Amino acid sequence: MTHAAPLSGVIPPVCTPLTPDREVDTASLTRLVDHLLEGGVDGLFVLGSTSEVAFLPDGHRRTVLDTVLGHVAGQVPVLSGVIDMTAPRVVDHVRVAVKAGADGIVATAPFYARTHPAEIAIHFRTIAAHAGIPVYAYDLPISVHSKLTADLLLELAAEGVLAGLKDSSGDEAGLREVILRRRDRDLTSFAVMTGSELTVDSALWMGADGVVPGLGNVDPHGYVRLYQAASRGDWEAARAEQERLFRLFPLVHVGGPHMGRSSSALGAFKAALFLRGVIDHPTTALPQIPLDADDIARVKDFLSEAALI
Amino acid sequence: MTHAAPLSGVIPPVCTPLTPDREVDTASLTRLVDHLLEGGVDGLFVLGSTSEVAFLPDGHRRTVLDTVLGHVAGQVPVLSGVIDMTAPRVVDHVRVAVKAGADGIVATAPFYARTHPAEIAIHFRTIAAHAGIPVYAYDLPISVHSKLTADLLLELAAEGVLAGLKDSSGDEAGLREVILRRRDRDLTSFAVMTGSELTVDSALWMGADGVVPGLGNVDPHGYVRLYQAASRGDWEAARAEQERLFRLFPLVHVGGPHMGRSSSALGAFKAALFLRGVIDHPTTALPQIPLDADDIARVKDFLSEAALI
Amino acid sequence: MTHAAPLSGVIPPVCTPLTPDREVDTASLTRLVDHLLEGGVDGLFVLGSTSEVAFLPDGHRRTVLDTVLGHVAGQVPVLSGVIDMTAPRVVDHVRVAVKAGADGIVATAPFYARTHPAEIAIHFRTIAAHAGIPVYAYDLPISVHSKLTADLLLELAAEGVLAGLKDSSGDEAGLREVILRRRDRDLTSFAVMTGSELTVDSALWMGADGVVPGLGNVDPHGYVRLYQAASRGDWEAARAEQERLFRLFPLVHVGGPHMGRSSSALGAFKAALFLRGVIDHPTTALPQIPLDADDIARVKDFLSEAALI
Amino acid sequence: MTHAAPLSGVIPPVCTPLTPDREVDTASLTRLVDHLLEGGVDGLFVLGSTSEVAFLPDGHRRTVLDTVLGHVAGQVPVLSGVIDMTAPRVVDHVRVAVKAGADGIVATAPFYARTHPAEIAIHFRTIAAHAGIPVYAYDLPISVHSKLTADLLLELAAEGVLAGLKDSSGDEAGLREVILRRRDRDLTSFAVMTGSELTVDSALWMGADGVVPGLGNVDPHGYVRLYQAASRGDWEAARAEQERLFRLFPLVHVGGPHMGRSSSALGAFKAALFLRGVIDHPTTALPQIPLDADDIARVKDFLSEAALI
Repeated sequence: MTHAAPLSGVIPPVCTPLTPDREVDTASLTRLVDHLLEGGVDGLFVLGSTSEVAFLPDGHRRTVLDTVLGHVAGQVPVLSGVIDMTAPRVVDHVRVAVKAGADGIVATAPFYARTHPAEIAIHFRTIAAHAGIPVYAYDLPISVHSKLTADLLLELAAEGVLAGLKDSSGDEAGLREVILRRRDRDLTSFAVMTGSELTVDSALWMGADGVVPGLGNVDPHGYVRLYQAASRGDWEAARAEQERLFRLFPLVHVGGPHMGRSSSALGAFKAALFLRGVIDHPTTALPQIPLDADDIARVKDFLSEAALI
Repeated sequence: MTHAAPLSGVIPPVCTPLTPDREVDTASLTRLVDHLLEGGVDGLFVLGSTSEVAFLPDGHRRTVLDTVLGHVAGQVPVLSGVIDMTAPRVVDHVRVAVKAGADGIVATAPFYARTHPAEIAIHFRTIAAHAGIPVYAYDLPISVHSKLTADLLLELAAEGVLAGLKDSSGDEAGLREVILRRRDRDLTSFAVMTGSELTVDSALWMGADGVVPGLGNVDPHGYVRLYQAASRGDWEAARAEQERLFRLFPLVHVGGPHMGRSSSALGAFKAALFLRGVIDHPTTALPQIPLDADDIARVKDFLSEAALI
Repeated sequence: MTHAAPLSGVIPPVCTPLTPDREVDTASLTRLVDHLLEGGVDGLFVLGSTSEVAFLPDGHRRTVLDTVLGHVAGQVPVLSGVIDMTAPRVVDHVRVAVKAGADGIVATAPFYARTHPAEIAIHFRTIAAHAGIPVYAYDLPISVHSKLTADLLLELAAEGVLAGLKDSSGDEAGLREVILRRRDRDLTSFAVMTGSELTVDSALWMGADGVVPGLGNVDPHGYVRLYQAASRGDWEAARAEQERLFRLFPLVHVGGPHMGRSSSALGAFKAALFLRGVIDHPTTALPQIPLDADDIARVKDFLSEAALI
Repeated sequence: MTHAAPLSGVIPPVCTPLTPDREVDTASLTRLVDHLLEGGVDGLFVLGSTSEVAFLPDGHRRTVLDTVLGHVAGQVPVLSGVIDMTAPRVVDHVRVAVKAGADGIVATAPFYARTHPAEIAIHFRTIAAHAGIPVYAYDLPISVHSKLTADLLLELAAEGVLAGLKDSSGDEAGLREVILRRRDRDLTSFAVMTGSELTVDSALWMGADGVVPGLGNVDPHGYVRLYQAASRGDWEAARAEQERLFRLFPLVHVGGPHMGRSSSALGAFKAALFLRGVIDHPTTALPQIPLDADDIARVKDFLSEAALI
């Protein structure tokens, strides 16, 4: 398998199942990988935000990498998040990911430290210099509180520092700017993936190469159908599938105002995987508040409505 | 030495000197510790924001802890930052700090992950359950994008979870609320330290116990004089000293708009320590842009003006 | 002409030409209206952000209303912005707009005052109770610092308070939520217009009724072609037109970092209209910094490139 | 009465009493002015945020000006807010205030429009060119979403554009920077007033000239005692008074999470004035949610505790 073509298709960020005492549940994780592969996904992204990477100690991160890469064994590319505050810390995670056999890494802009755009460029250059495998930029302003500009991304693409972008900024005009300017500059090997799981048809319409959908854990078949419809030019079918997934999405709000929005969304994804029989426990990492029985009942209603259970 | 009394006095966050190839410069770090102790400080805080903790890999963090704790050898309390995204990752740093012999740890609210106030409480409770040494909350909204409320802090103080607060929020009314409600609830062992180095006289006037001043690396004697003047009730002298330090502070802006504000401030502190002969290199960590020769010349002007060189 | 059908099509926000001494240039304004009508637009929106409404005293606002409504004379619907801090002040503008003969009004959420979602609902209900003509909600978080939720909009639509939405939030998933839930609740008379001029094809694809494009002042024919292509189902042509307009759009940045982003964009629109011979002066309102000769030369380059001069 | 000396002392922002049908209650307003004058205040500030200026149509604003200026008749200086989005609109309010006889005006940075620091300077220069009476800058980032820098303020002070500052930013280090640099540049006629009613003793200690306390509506005597104690150098008494007022302040939170924070605070001030017999109705302007009976009972408890009823 070669990765000369840019990344494309459906590459879900893989949830990290935990046991009730909050160790990585490797048996469930393996089943989740099978569930996604059986759904027809084109790659996997481990240790991203949806994987609760911010809550996983380094030991857990290593277990996830080893489990997934061992099980996938090259069937599809596996990207690894290397989420940490700045390049010198990120590089430590890169070493682990490379050693485990990841096909690419995904890094955000610096966070906690307040940096300058020129420093963000140095950050990615430093990471790439240590990686030896493709580096994808993860644009996630809601977590890191800065936005990656098209100028920066395309400069780093032209330098060979970045192999692509996962855009979870929600800024569709910004996504389109990257896509159009990539075309103008003939940076065809730079992959543009959207992380906005509710506008996948329009992102693909604009020219994006694929999607990294958190909700794809729950319904990988749906996102694969969406992508395949778009690929064959059946945009009506792509839109219909997207609208169906749009109606499933509000399960992320079942936790309501009594917990963080991340906790509610991640709890709902895990509850759905539990209810679908894919993972053994819906446990989320500390300090997240767990969904209660009523919340989980509402997740079940969403799944029933979508004929997923 | 017992620490039954709450923390108080001047406890500077210790810069982390680096060699030109960006390893921890332990010789310089030891001299910096001596410089601070000679200045009369009441404690040290390593691995805080001013220590470039966001830029230090775990190996560097351990080197800093071992170097400082080994050299101080109990002369003053040494607190250690345990800065990471959420409790499960923070706990790994806590273990290292405890093993190294730290007298207390300093933890922020979660960051990167979006959390709920109830989850911030669980975060601190989880950390405290693993620490076995005093836990101080570090209120730093500019880095973590949430503010610790007086309600939360005092609840955790009453539970015995928190031993104190380092308030770097810049919210002086909020600081005063904690101080007054601490008094009302007789939580006298809960230490309140300000991290706002430009309003130390007024913070002490309101009832704060001490200060954690980044600028204290450059001029520890000044902050110690300020604190001692306030302690003996000579507020005029305290104010005069604070105003003198206020005029030294703008050295943090020498880097101008061409780098991040953190880079400029940390670069200036290190340049000043280098110019004063305390450390061997003014190197800052990647991906920060270094000060140039003109910037350093301006730091020198500030030091001359303040008769510090 | 009846307006029983919801608003649709291309409804540009009309720039407000000024004389060199910063009075409303009514002759230029009339020519601008003709330019837009000749371009085939479906309606006009006066006194919006692109009209520099925040910079126009009440006397100027009245002049704009009287000039445009007198000149249009019912050829197309004319909506009027009624931009002010809260309902009691907005209502004064509503009275003027109604008296002048506006076909609808456009109001934002409260600003300056910090309000609660329930208060935003009361704000719109109060406005509608005084209007007697259709009220459109203007979602513009960048100016008013709060976001209108789908819950709020659809509740007010169902109550008959709101006739539609102009969504300038840039949140395409939020726009789609309104569109899909409007369909589910059969609120077919509630118009959904996007104000995001760079994603019009995808907004129409999702089900939006039209667009309110600031750039439509410069190239109304382009937006009309885009809308008409989408209306007849020729999405390829719509996308090609959108991509062409996308490449024209960066003229808004010619002012660079030395002025506000609004000043640069509004200055560029006016410079383009001046260069195209539509208006007599490119003057913008105080306290905006004007474009300089180099900036205007760059606007000219954009127009040449787009074959608009 | 001459105003050659800079403004100083206690200058409360005057609440605007309303009748149940939300007209200006001029009889109550007159009594409120008497209540404040009897409390010993040094001036009055009408049409500020605490006056619900964002909710008052122009007609109401004029009524307030005429009522207060007519009643005060020169006993103390009366400043008028001229709150609007940008200079061209502010100037209309300035004309009304000047005609009514105001002794000075108070203007914020532009809002709604996104501006550049250089444009904020032009904004204030434009206002001053039309005023002919002293212009005070009102630094209120929570409402206008930009911060006035010391550089800007002192430049405009040196130019003679600004007569002073009302600092409601909560940034005490920034306040101190203005105070110290004012001293260095010998801009002694530039008044610095704090709007932070919980840190008045420390602001005066740093060198501020006075305070504009919203809570001063409820307890003007307290703020006057605080200021007078500081003026005679009895800082212990000033602090004790400030701490007493600090404990009264949380009445602003009685409205809880079911309304905006402004609504809760302004509702509580009006309820307190009603309960103290100063005004006839606690009515707040639309679209604010009113306090309910329980909320008002809690305001009463605060007043009882403070021996104000």
